[in-house]
Amino acid sequence: MKVHLITIGDEILIGQIVDTNSAWMGRHLNEHGIHISGISSVPDEEQAIHQALRLGMAEADAILMTGGLGPTKDDVTKIALASFTGGQMAFHEKSYERIQRFFERLGRKPTEAHRQQSYMPDNAAILTNRMGTAPGMWIEHQDHVIVSMPGIPYEMEYLMQHEVIPKLVKRFQPRPVKHRTLLTAGMGESNIAERIQDLEEALPPHIKLAYLPNLGKVRLRLSGSSDDQTQLEQELDRHATTIKDRLQDLVFGQEEETLEEVVGRMLKARSLMLCTAESCTGGYIGHLITSVPGSSDYFQGGLIAYSNEVKQQQLGVKAETLEKYGAVSEQTVREMAEGAVRLFGGGISIAISGIAGPGGGSKDKPVGTIWMAVGTADTVETFLLRAGKDRLKNIQYAGNHALNFIRLFLQKHVPAQA
Amino acid sequence: MKVHLITIGDEILIGQIVDTNSAWMGRHLNEHGIHISGISSVPDEEQAIHQALRLGMAEADAILMTGGLGPTKDDVTKIALASFTGGQMAFHEKSYERIQRFFERLGRKPTEAHRQQSYMPDNAAILTNRMGTAPGMWIEHQDHVIVSMPGIPYEMEYLMQHEVIPKLVKRFQPRPVKHRTLLTAGMGESNIAERIQDLEEALPPHIKLAYLPNLGKVRLRLSGSSDDQTQLEQELDRHATTIKDRLQDLVFGQEEETLEEVVGRMLKARSLMLCTAESCTGGYIGHLITSVPGSSDYFQGGLIAYSNEVKQQQLGVKAETLEKYGAVSEQTVREMAEGAVRLFGGGISIAISGIAGPGGGSKDKPVGTIWMAVGTADTVETFLLRAGKDRLKNIQYAGNHALNFIRLFLQKHVPAQA
Repeated sequence: MKVHLITIGDEILIGQIVDTNSAWMGRHLNEHGIHISGISSVPDEEQAIHQALRLGMAEADAILMTGGLGPTKDDVTKIALASFTGGQMAFHEKSYERIQRFFERLGRKPTEAHRQQSYMPDNAAILTNRMGTAPGMWIEHQDHVIVSMPGIPYEMEYLMQHEVIPKLVKRFQPRPVKHRTLLTAGMGESNIAERIQDLEEALPPHIKLAYLPNLGKVRLRLSGSSDDQTQLEQELDRHATTIKDRLQDLVFGQEEETLEEVVGRMLKARSLMLCTAESCTGGYIGHLITSVPGSSDYFQGGLIAYSNEVKQQQLGVKAETLEKYGAVSEQTVREMAEGAVRLFGGGISIAISGIAGPGGGSKDKPVGTIWMAVGTADTVETFLLRAGKDRLKNIQYAGNHALNFIRLFLQKHVPAQA
Repeated sequence: MKVHLITIGDEILIGQIVDTNSAWMGRHLNEHGIHISGISSVPDEEQAIHQALRLGMAEADAILMTGGLGPTKDDVTKIALASFTGGQMAFHEKSYERIQRFFERLGRKPTEAHRQQSYMPDNAAILTNRMGTAPGMWIEHQDHVIVSMPGIPYEMEYLMQHEVIPKLVKRFQPRPVKHRTLLTAGMGESNIAERIQDLEEALPPHIKLAYLPNLGKVRLRLSGSSDDQTQLEQELDRHATTIKDRLQDLVFGQEEETLEEVVGRMLKARSLMLCTAESCTGGYIGHLITSVPGSSDYFQGGLIAYSNEVKQQQLGVKAETLEKYGAVSEQTVREMAEGAVRLFGGGISIAISGIAGPGGGSKDKPVGTIWMAVGTADTVETFLLRAGKDRLKNIQYAGNHALNFIRLFLQKHVPAQA
């Protein structure tokens, strides 16, 4: 079953707000096997709304509209809806009573503008919105369903979960879609694609594979739909396992996990405390790690060693090392990692020093040259990363790789405790 | 002048990613007087792309497409573009050479998939993408312009700023919209609106004021368009100055400056080195500061003092202080700030300790309670911040306020050197 989404409002077209509603709706509809054929974002204009409605009628079974229902007068959604479906605007007593009660609870009185919200197409079934004053509307039109909801995210989400999705499922009985997502780090999209090309080509037509890259990480998503749910689940599991076995260490997790969470769990399972010694990332790695609730269980702190003085005085990096090899070198990050373990009294450390750019590059050390070391009291491993030219992207790219290097180091050198 | 946006990719329709590109494009096009007539999000299917192109041709002068240019085989944008505009797919030698050089720099080899990226419609002018391997394409078709860009935000942004927007302005000469932007920090949108209500009401009809809030910061943007550019510029300057005078210290900068840059300049002008002592922000403040190129001129480093042990051992916070007042207290951040100045040998320090959430709150110290201190060898000032419930937002909100507190402290206590 297909739906077309229409998001209404000038504020989206001038970029004042990001349309997060569509993604939320796409995700939740998909879980019920309802596919989005397309999304139209249109201004608050009757003609534009009609055009999008015509497009939706042509390509989908149902049309879900959000926005344009607020009390401000530039909201023409309802009028457009009535004129498109041949309904008449009529005052809806029940809705106005609800609005009055809603304001009573807030100890306020509804304005005339709020009273206007109770005018609705007489051919619409009203969907009660317990989160706000603008109700949803459900109209049956030429074997299609047209639904209108407010654009305020939590009001839309309430109506979708309690009214719209259940009604759509009942009305159209869609065939659910199942997903399996493999999370990888450390290799680019196209190299992964080459590695599993034969596996991808061997996928049955009802199972699709999508690549979703993001700065050093790539999500591989298998999606399938079938009448035989149990068989589909088994197929997806089998293909996910085959790909996972092929990609080995590149896969750090599944479904909605983050690399930060995975590394955190691995540290916890080894009752190992992590510390950081960051130069070019300036604290970003610490930020990634502490963005996970409960990270204090396995992260005690770190040193942002931005200047050479701090590298020497706090981490004990030798002056000779800095002179001979430079701050961005394998030798320096090794000494930084060793120094961090000393400074924070044991555990495991990640050290990083690189040229984030845009300046500071040289012929043999161009912008994007980044050295990292992961170490414990007895083992240190170093890694060289070659990133791009954009400073902020380089920092984020390096941060993701740093987490991945910690993961690989733990797998290799530190067994999890039973 | 009008453009229609087309965002291509199943991952948008299934809600795997939020389409932030459209809002970015809407904002930046608007600044140049280019208006978005509508946005279509379509799947990776030739027919769907053609339909959106037809819609765009009908309602706009130009069509900007993003997405569907990656090296993986589910990308059909180029084929759809060729068939729609009557072009033939041809191998573009120059682009492939660029890709090869791009990979050489990374010390890697392009794959066959990357080679495929060099096939493009022969009627397209190539827009060089210095941020990635997929070039942009510019096609003149029936008095319209059709542009295709990669969907990766920083690649799209690079192409828009360096190629697409300048070319569109040159080709269509849209009536420019002039802006003046005042950047404020430390007060919420509605409080600012109250303070300047009379000034806003006094604005002439051809000048509009927009509030763009972002986690502790609010951008006030005056926009106007007029045939008399000189007079408009003067009007905008006059109104900007009046609002700035009213808001005083709340205004930290203008136009495209960031708070990080402003604080950096202030430190440089005082030849003062900054150091950080972060608990709840876990390195995020250091990350903000070092996101500015050249920050090594005024930032020497910081300590991420996540555990109480690190607060005591590295920063010399007294055990009694932690016991009596707790880690999240005015007394603790004061000692952290003093300790940081000692540890890093002088200069100015920012210290922060708070409850980022979701856990760890109590009745008298609820989630979002954040203490900060800014100090030099002789002066320390403390600040209490009450943030919300969302961990990541709290960290970012605290980071912005921390920078602002440094700014206010410098203004008050440390005169800039002539």
